[in-house]
Amino acid sequence: MKQKNKIYEVKNFSLENEQLLQYETLFHNANGYLGVRSNFEEGYPDSYQTVRGEYINGFYNFSRMNQAEKLCGLTEEKQVMPNLVDTQGIQLTVCGEPFSMFRGKILDSARILDMEKGVTIRRVIWRSPGQRELEIEITRMTSFKMLPLFTIEYRVRALNFSGSIEFFSTHIGDVRNSFSSKDPRVADGAARHLRPEAAVFTPEGFSTITSHTTTSRLTAVSMVCNRLSYPAAESREARGPAAVQEFRLNLDQGHSVTLTKYTVLCDSVHYQNCEDLAADLMKQAVSVPLSDWYHAQERYLKQFWETGNIQLEGDDALQNAITYNLYQLIQSVGKDPHSNIAAKGLSGEGYEGHYFWDTEMYIEPYFLLTRPSLAKNLIAFRYTTLDAARRNARILGHRKGALYPWRTIMGRECSGYFPSGSAQYHINGDIAYSVVNYYLTTKDFDFMVHCGAEILFETARLWMDVGNYYKGKFRINCVTGPDEYTCLVNNNYYTNVIARYNLKWAARFYRMMTEENKISPLAERLCLTREEILSFQQAADDMYLPYNQELDINPQDDSFLSKEKWDFSQTPPDSFPLLMHVHPLSLYRRQVCKQADTILAHFILEDEQPLSTMRHSYDYYEKITTHDSSLSSCIFCIMAARFGMTEKAYSYFGKSAQTDLMNTHGNTKDGLHIANMGGVYMSIVYGFGGLRIKEDGLHLAPVLPQKWGGYSFKLYFENSLLAISVKHPVCEITLLSGTEKTLFFYGKAHQLKDRLNIPLEPWGEKI
Amino acid sequence: MKQKNKIYEVKNFSLENEQLLQYETLFHNANGYLGVRSNFEEGYPDSYQTVRGEYINGFYNFSRMNQAEKLCGLTEEKQVMPNLVDTQGIQLTVCGEPFSMFRGKILDSARILDMEKGVTIRRVIWRSPGQRELEIEITRMTSFKMLPLFTIEYRVRALNFSGSIEFFSTHIGDVRNSFSSKDPRVADGAARHLRPEAAVFTPEGFSTITSHTTTSRLTAVSMVCNRLSYPAAESREARGPAAVQEFRLNLDQGHSVTLTKYTVLCDSVHYQNCEDLAADLMKQAVSVPLSDWYHAQERYLKQFWETGNIQLEGDDALQNAITYNLYQLIQSVGKDPHSNIAAKGLSGEGYEGHYFWDTEMYIEPYFLLTRPSLAKNLIAFRYTTLDAARRNARILGHRKGALYPWRTIMGRECSGYFPSGSAQYHINGDIAYSVVNYYLTTKDFDFMVHCGAEILFETARLWMDVGNYYKGKFRINCVTGPDEYTCLVNNNYYTNVIARYNLKWAARFYRMMTEENKISPLAERLCLTREEILSFQQAADDMYLPYNQELDINPQDDSFLSKEKWDFSQTPPDSFPLLMHVHPLSLYRRQVCKQADTILAHFILEDEQPLSTMRHSYDYYEKITTHDSSLSSCIFCIMAARFGMTEKAYSYFGKSAQTDLMNTHGNTKDGLHIANMGGVYMSIVYGFGGLRIKEDGLHLAPVLPQKWGGYSFKLYFENSLLAISVKHPVCEITLLSGTEKTLFFYGKAHQLKDRLNIPLEPWGEKI
Repeated sequence: MKQKNKIYEVKNFSLENEQLLQYETLFHNANGYLGVRSNFEEGYPDSYQTVRGEYINGFYNFSRMNQAEKLCGLTEEKQVMPNLVDTQGIQLTVCGEPFSMFRGKILDSARILDMEKGVTIRRVIWRSPGQRELEIEITRMTSFKMLPLFTIEYRVRALNFSGSIEFFSTHIGDVRNSFSSKDPRVADGAARHLRPEAAVFTPEGFSTITSHTTTSRLTAVSMVCNRLSYPAAESREARGPAAVQEFRLNLDQGHSVTLTKYTVLCDSVHYQNCEDLAADLMKQAVSVPLSDWYHAQERYLKQFWETGNIQLEGDDALQNAITYNLYQLIQSVGKDPHSNIAAKGLSGEGYEGHYFWDTEMYIEPYFLLTRPSLAKNLIAFRYTTLDAARRNARILGHRKGALYPWRTIMGRECSGYFPSGSAQYHINGDIAYSVVNYYLTTKDFDFMVHCGAEILFETARLWMDVGNYYKGKFRINCVTGPDEYTCLVNNNYYTNVIARYNLKWAARFYRMMTEENKISPLAERLCLTREEILSFQQAADDMYLPYNQELDINPQDDSFLSKEKWDFSQTPPDSFPLLMHVHPLSLYRRQVCKQADTILAHFILEDEQPLSTMRHSYDYYEKITTHDSSLSSCIFCIMAARFGMTEKAYSYFGKSAQTDLMNTHGNTKDGLHIANMGGVYMSIVYGFGGLRIKEDGLHLAPVLPQKWGGYSFKLYFENSLLAISVKHPVCEITLLSGTEKTLFFYGKAHQLKDRLNIPLEPWGEKI
Repeated sequence: MKQKNKIYEVKNFSLENEQLLQYETLFHNANGYLGVRSNFEEGYPDSYQTVRGEYINGFYNFSRMNQAEKLCGLTEEKQVMPNLVDTQGIQLTVCGEPFSMFRGKILDSARILDMEKGVTIRRVIWRSPGQRELEIEITRMTSFKMLPLFTIEYRVRALNFSGSIEFFSTHIGDVRNSFSSKDPRVADGAARHLRPEAAVFTPEGFSTITSHTTTSRLTAVSMVCNRLSYPAAESREARGPAAVQEFRLNLDQGHSVTLTKYTVLCDSVHYQNCEDLAADLMKQAVSVPLSDWYHAQERYLKQFWETGNIQLEGDDALQNAITYNLYQLIQSVGKDPHSNIAAKGLSGEGYEGHYFWDTEMYIEPYFLLTRPSLAKNLIAFRYTTLDAARRNARILGHRKGALYPWRTIMGRECSGYFPSGSAQYHINGDIAYSVVNYYLTTKDFDFMVHCGAEILFETARLWMDVGNYYKGKFRINCVTGPDEYTCLVNNNYYTNVIARYNLKWAARFYRMMTEENKISPLAERLCLTREEILSFQQAADDMYLPYNQELDINPQDDSFLSKEKWDFSQTPPDSFPLLMHVHPLSLYRRQVCKQADTILAHFILEDEQPLSTMRHSYDYYEKITTHDSSLSSCIFCIMAARFGMTEKAYSYFGKSAQTDLMNTHGNTKDGLHIANMGGVYMSIVYGFGGLRIKEDGLHLAPVLPQKWGGYSFKLYFENSLLAISVKHPVCEITLLSGTEKTLFFYGKAHQLKDRLNIPLEPWGEKI
């Protein structure tokens, strides 16, 4: 494996099945709307497994989910992101010999992801069993400029022969989803989600397949156009829900021929009249040379990298990993309010294309700081699904307010096991937190008036219904915190502290909007009274936050500390992740964490506890956390940096940054760990950079791991663009655009006009 | 409805579908091995629902149970009691007119359960559309003498005509189970559990169908013989997995003809070579007149009622209800160690024929006191499934000990939703409690050495693995108590107190067996050391039992009192049972009980707390208990009596006694509430009679509700038979057989030689 600049390249890559499944994920193409796994056009041997898929973000089918026992209100229907079509197929035949990497001899090969150009390339020099040598270069792109467009540029060069060449290009509507009957993290159930109509050819020669979802009454249209660079005998045929196009020609030694295959994929969630639109877009796509689309792609990414990248000095491997991770974020994020960011992006079928809290707590911060309009879309998505969240709250028995689903595509709950699903009420707080964070970073009051405040009010109302007073304190019983190894507990610290924040800010926005004369229409519509707002504030003030004086830590919940600690000395290394090997009761009954929980609370709301308590909590939980969730290491990195343990932070960072590239969780084949990728960004900016956005403004407290010469990044804050460069012995901040502002370094205010140089300080305390 | 003596009779019964479904349950025939629902031989109209079934207790098929999310160790296969065959079919045709109660006119009708004769009767006087009048009397019996035998005696009398009569008797192997997709308490899933072979006729003319379960590799054989009292043209035919026999004759006015249909049903769980056995048994069955079998049935029941009945003076309705309830217990109880008592007995398919803690805590006491050999069988069943319980413990992550399944037929867990299933670890304590109770009542030390002690040791070991020390106390985290409206809690009072009892008695039996030189073989086999026994005793001594000083009650669990109380003022009456209308989280988060939990603990282990604490607990929990479980009212009855609230006890008793006869839970059609029926017995004997079996002997503290003239019952204690008669102003105890003993009345010792007369005292305290 080799990677430099913004190139991720694997030379002479393995043809082992497991490795190919990983590459399908690692080299997938996506643009936030469309995702295509990196399958071989010609396929694998029959005995090989593959997840051959093309997906649209936010498109869904409904699927039955049987509950083993049918308790009231349990979810029995989920949404699934369907595999839509297979337009990847291109069979190449040379003088009667079909090309396959599993026959003949591979003289050279490489897979390349070019993150400046926004394309993937497979390059093969192949000697056929009949001793014909070919160079094949296949370039694939999902266009950021035209989101429904996916292109394959398939170039063949005859190295040592002249002879006949055949391309057999397929467009197949009858596809299925992949599933595993064993792994709870992978999709399950009926794998056929579409009813494709018969393929037809348009007058322009585009093959078209219109497919309807089996249960959700949605439509997806795929259109394919094949263009050859060389005169050829051509035939085409529609065979039921499939279309094939065949090209035959003679190629002279040393010459090359290119088949360009355009796919346009449109759906009825995002577009009206998607059939007509697909045809229009396809005409547009083929009306200019492919190179125009490549240039547009490069321009888009130039702009992206301009503000979106992080520069690291003195650590090429990690620099490459960071670049890879950030690129996957822009590949995954929805570009409109109808789509969000799936847990696996558009890279695979793990978690069935569902959106989780991952968005708000791990990924949104990246876009908020580098591309605020995309963050705004993500909040708008939650706003458009607010009614569904209200209905979800009723299902869970709440008379008022909204409860966001733990996992969803179109807004309804998809969680089949509620103790570690729907019971994670903290998602309401997470979304509220992200709304406030958006406001504090952008000061976009108008958006708050039209969307944000309503989310805050309705989530706050839910807390009032779920919590209750006992002994003068407001308590929240029977919920599950972020740590899924302990479920259905009382007063989970994370939940209570974020609920408090939610309630407090709901009350605050009510006051702010009252002052600005903007509250009446919304308050009337929601029947929101001043008394209700006062009850929010009172509950926030009275919120019970568990604290153990003896240990000076925040217990994860009321009973956590009374449980037995997990015996790691008796746990063989192949028993991780524990969730795959241990009954839930065995986990719930012990002090053992899948992921950061209280530590995450301390990161996002650091002013709720003294530093010493947070530090003691860190030490306590670190010993019992397995990091079986990929959402954990980055948070431990950030907080290690906060406490001055820079080298420990560096170690966590390395694990986090390499998660998918090294397949450390063993399931990269099911898709990328997108939240962790956001966590990689956060590790640098919030961790080493010490960034916090608070009411009084932007805080930084940079530290520098020994191994690094320095690092730099840019961010937007209150519509100004700042460049931050940390290089021993100073941190330099440049105001690239926007207005003068007060920034805080290591807790002290500084005025930024054009540039500031702040000497690096040790930060955090060793207690 | 009319009922007197041991007759339960409904005259001119309704033909509404819902009512017929209830009658199918209420008039079913069973003998603990075989159960037949009371379906019409001729069937209902096509639009009617019916649960037409014949079952064998302890026979099972495996059925897939999909988990919505596949967490490690969750149950994915359950056992189901299959509907085995339909041998009930008899179509009667009179001069070409088929008999149906839904055509023509019913001049008179009655359904009768005769609990002295052990038969059910349907009697109809019918006028056909063609004005022919018939008297039909159908008597059905499942024989207590020959358990695999079921008979239908079908007598027809021509009242106003002479003419042709046809009987068409069917034997159908291709049957299914009934299921509901909505009610979690009814079976679900694949309804076809058997593959029947083709029917064949034996040389004797018995039709035979051998059926194999689809997944559990078991076999059931049904054999049918039809005998007519009158010369007739006869034909027979086997048609695939069905056999029919037809009889034609001419009947003169005023005369009658009887078809006797014998069914023998044998299975491979209980018998080897069940095909041969069925044939032998059938030959035996038809070799004597049917009246011989009736006499044997009556003799069996005479003996049963001799010790098993309760006599009530001055309350006919309740007397009849008691008799009905007790009769259902003898119909339901397994007569060998391969079968137990299903939650619905053999009366329906609710709870899929599974055995629960109902056996030990609600039903076994009846047999222990009136027929100890049957109680011994029930414990032997738990002993034969001990290995399965050991394997179950491993699945739940326990290194040592055995964990009995929450619901099962053959020993493996069938609970699909573990928070209110497998997490009910108290079942281990319940079984241990029943073992000790058996010993204290019978002093059968030999059985303890061979079976009982091993159960005690293995269940005790489990508690050591599930519990842990914290702040000097032994605690049990993350289990569910009997009350299923609060799940996965810490230190459920019921669980902790019964675990303590389990641990204490395990240690005690170890010492007793050591003294008797009986411990070595078992201790060696189980690798049980003296140190381990000491740890049992220590944990018992250190067991944490939640107590709230302010309220002077035992909180149901650590956090119960901090939760909001359920708002009954906002709960419309049709919202009960709450489990059918409210999401589990809404229940778990509130103080609301489905059933007795702490109150049950106080009943079975009354010396663990001061009377005042138990009384305060009673008052506290009574207000928040819905009695949505049929296992609740009887316990509240017993404890109301204990606290001197005799009339309140009487009111609870009435509810409990009428549960199925009045269909108060609305689901009698799915089967009887057998545990509640045991609870009816307990309400009299433990409730009004004040019976407790303790280490020092038998305690009684009789009270008498105002409405009753008196009540009396018999019981075995230490191999002696006692008759207890309570009639104002005294309680008379007679030693019917056995040896002199010390008994305790109202806490004071009395010596029973032949007879004792104890003046009734007020009992319990109003605090």
